[in-house]
Amino acid sequence: MDTLLSGGLVVTMDPDADGATGALGIIDDGAVGWTDGELAFVGPAADADPTAAGTVVDAGGAAVLPGLVNAHVHGRHTVLRGGAQDVPEIEWMNDALGPIAAHATDADGTVGCRLAAVETLASGVTTVCEYAERVADLVADVYRPLGLRVAATETITAVADDPDVGPDEPYPFDPDAGRAALERAEALFDAYAADPAVEPMYGPQALDMVPRDLLAEIESRSRREDRAVHMHVAQGDRERRQIEARYGAGATTVGVLGDLGLVSDRLLAAHLHGATPDARVRLANAGVRMVGCPSSIAAIDGIVPPLAGYRDAGGVAGIGTDQAPGPGGHDLRREFRTAAMLAKTDAADPTALTAPDALRLATIGGARALGLADRVGSLTPGKRADVAVFDLEAAGVAPTVAEPFHTAIPNLAYAGAAAPIRAVFVDGERLVDADGVRGVDAEALVTDATRRAERIFADAESDWRAAGSRLVADADAGRL
Amino acid sequence: MDTLLSGGLVVTMDPDADGATGALGIIDDGAVGWTDGELAFVGPAADADPTAAGTVVDAGGAAVLPGLVNAHVHGRHTVLRGGAQDVPEIEWMNDALGPIAAHATDADGTVGCRLAAVETLASGVTTVCEYAERVADLVADVYRPLGLRVAATETITAVADDPDVGPDEPYPFDPDAGRAALERAEALFDAYAADPAVEPMYGPQALDMVPRDLLAEIESRSRREDRAVHMHVAQGDRERRQIEARYGAGATTVGVLGDLGLVSDRLLAAHLHGATPDARVRLANAGVRMVGCPSSIAAIDGIVPPLAGYRDAGGVAGIGTDQAPGPGGHDLRREFRTAAMLAKTDAADPTALTAPDALRLATIGGARALGLADRVGSLTPGKRADVAVFDLEAAGVAPTVAEPFHTAIPNLAYAGAAAPIRAVFVDGERLVDADGVRGVDAEALVTDATRRAERIFADAESDWRAAGSRLVADADAGRL
Repeated sequence: MDTLLSGGLVVTMDPDADGATGALGIIDDGAVGWTDGELAFVGPAADADPTAAGTVVDAGGAAVLPGLVNAHVHGRHTVLRGGAQDVPEIEWMNDALGPIAAHATDADGTVGCRLAAVETLASGVTTVCEYAERVADLVADVYRPLGLRVAATETITAVADDPDVGPDEPYPFDPDAGRAALERAEALFDAYAADPAVEPMYGPQALDMVPRDLLAEIESRSRREDRAVHMHVAQGDRERRQIEARYGAGATTVGVLGDLGLVSDRLLAAHLHGATPDARVRLANAGVRMVGCPSSIAAIDGIVPPLAGYRDAGGVAGIGTDQAPGPGGHDLRREFRTAAMLAKTDAADPTALTAPDALRLATIGGARALGLADRVGSLTPGKRADVAVFDLEAAGVAPTVAEPFHTAIPNLAYAGAAAPIRAVFVDGERLVDADGVRGVDAEALVTDATRRAERIFADAESDWRAAGSRLVADADAGRL
Repeated sequence: MDTLLSGGLVVTMDPDADGATGALGIIDDGAVGWTDGELAFVGPAADADPTAAGTVVDAGGAAVLPGLVNAHVHGRHTVLRGGAQDVPEIEWMNDALGPIAAHATDADGTVGCRLAAVETLASGVTTVCEYAERVADLVADVYRPLGLRVAATETITAVADDPDVGPDEPYPFDPDAGRAALERAEALFDAYAADPAVEPMYGPQALDMVPRDLLAEIESRSRREDRAVHMHVAQGDRERRQIEARYGAGATTVGVLGDLGLVSDRLLAAHLHGATPDARVRLANAGVRMVGCPSSIAAIDGIVPPLAGYRDAGGVAGIGTDQAPGPGGHDLRREFRTAAMLAKTDAADPTALTAPDALRLATIGGARALGLADRVGSLTPGKRADVAVFDLEAAGVAPTVAEPFHTAIPNLAYAGAAAPIRAVFVDGERLVDADGVRGVDAEALVTDATRRAERIFADAESDWRAAGSRLVADADAGRL
């Protein structure tokens, strides 16, 4: 073995038990070892042979979990962190974020994405599902250089960024733009066909943003090649009205997706808060996977994504941090805690979305949602050595006991970002230590991002004032 | 001046503007200076004279805020962190936490409280409102040795810890126990009459737990001496049924408190989720102050405390972390973020409880709730030098811009625990630096707490199993 992590509380997130007993696969005084980036040993430390390991890392006082999966991220917007929040949903993109985002260049977006990737990696994430136009640029310039595993979703839309139409008037389409995006997705599949660290996906942005014939084409290719389709589904009122305007009164997103053949286990549906409970059961029964973004949807819409309900319906679900300008950023520890707190209050039931559930969403759930559970999401021999090590001896997590139950499970789940990360490994390579992400000059990155943000916000000021979101009054009154 | 913090983004939380324009008092490139622990200068760095300061601390790239106020804490339970969560409210104390807590000694509780104090101090908190029996012990053994300011509430109850009665049968009272608690409170007022760092309060635990004549006595003393009464008010269904059983059908907590003369600006009411909106308006109009504990009440009850509504009704409100076993701990940065996310989803409105609101709750709001706004809660010359310095250059908070508005406000509010603390000062003394709480051997504290927790949980195991909360099955199935 190259490396043996030994002496920690190992939580394998046993995928066999999930759905059956729900056992997490907890091993006291456990060890995890790997060779060439593949897990070779997971079990009690007493059964491992440290003399056979090139390097032995002491995991005493730590919890060793599979690397976390951040299953839905638009990283570029991170350069605009704090740019739009606390506004009505209808103002958020059109009047608050949009006028600022329009002044960001590709290079700005790359720096924003790098900041997102560094932030989320430092929170224990080893796999990011990035959803972006020209996502190949971000894979090549950001994710792979950092060593992160990435599910790369190419955004496919035929709608201009800010279509000047009312909510009940269908968006005007530019079919060529949609086709070009599909071809970019095809190129992505070709480029990374042999790379297990990059999983491409088709990303038709939403049912109201892609012409029917292009969706049919995506469905056909997806079925033929057994490729995933990652789509924002049932995001709320504006989409609902668009679908009725385009597909007729009474038409629903889930109904039309079904007619198009897209309701299948190849579909990864983001958000789903606009779908009825019956529609969600239909999706779950069809094997559609879900990703929910609790903080983002809370911040933008004031809505709790139906993660608990989707799991109760038998659906596979993961979580993602989505975007930084509204909810703050990409720390996935914060996100699994938030998922639990929001689910409990949404259901008026403190037993909704438990601590084990929260950790599952962030690991094996996310891996299944992304179709990567053959590789990651649990500490299982034969899977990749994607591992996150959490310090259990910090003042905000301690004490933990192992009998009569492991308080480390709730302590980690509910500490959120207060649980320090000791180490993160992807494919067996150590990317993070207690000082942060290795090989990244974080100070220079922040300086670069700040310089860019200052320019973007300065360039955007008159457009932003003219758009007139309520943030303008907040700024002028000294509240922001 | 002893010390000048210079070059940061100063956010004074201007108490004059709060309630009027809501301006936060933001000063770009600001400075804060003090002499003998009293703020002497707050303004632009250009107007400060660094040569007149004994020590100049560079606050470049940081936000300088008033020290945070954690307005409701039961610190001892922190030794039981992770001991009870994800259970129905009715099981939480009786079947889950209670059987474990019964095995904790006073010394265990002191160590738990020290852990809570260290955790909350390291999150930027400078004032803690501790609510406990024999609170003087915790003031003397924990809070003052750490240098924290403390609002010390002596719990007054006449009910045994675990009364063996049904929910509709009034608790049996031990009047002597209630009297003894009141006398402890009196001793506390006497002992700290001349100490501005300790603010005693009467803590009648809840209306259903204190005999009417004792409440009348507390009210009378409170009025005569102008002392605060800190009480859990309208905590939910069990209390509601107790009040009807004791005071007659239709009786409500707020109604009975009014009859007893306790509805006044001397009352600090915790929780309030069981009060009707009309009752809350009555309380707000009477000047009753509120403290809400979003994570705790979400975790235990699946309920969002009515902080946003109470502020909208004109009430003064602060926030607290309450207890560690359910929601994870005492990081107040995490708590103000959670307050905002929960309020938005509770109201189905992303404009509910904004980023400025969240920071206000944690500073001037908490100071007002505790009756300490003459001393703390804002950076105002003449107030005490209680100051928290947040790093704005971390990957989870950056970038920030100052024009056309200060993105540092939402970035701090929504980063939560991901925003690193650079320094915390109380009465001008530096208690925290980037390495943590000064003068505390955190490793030894955690080791001690862990040893104690292991003993408590081991001793409690058979009682805990016999009580039979659903956590027993979770443990046996390997979910915990």
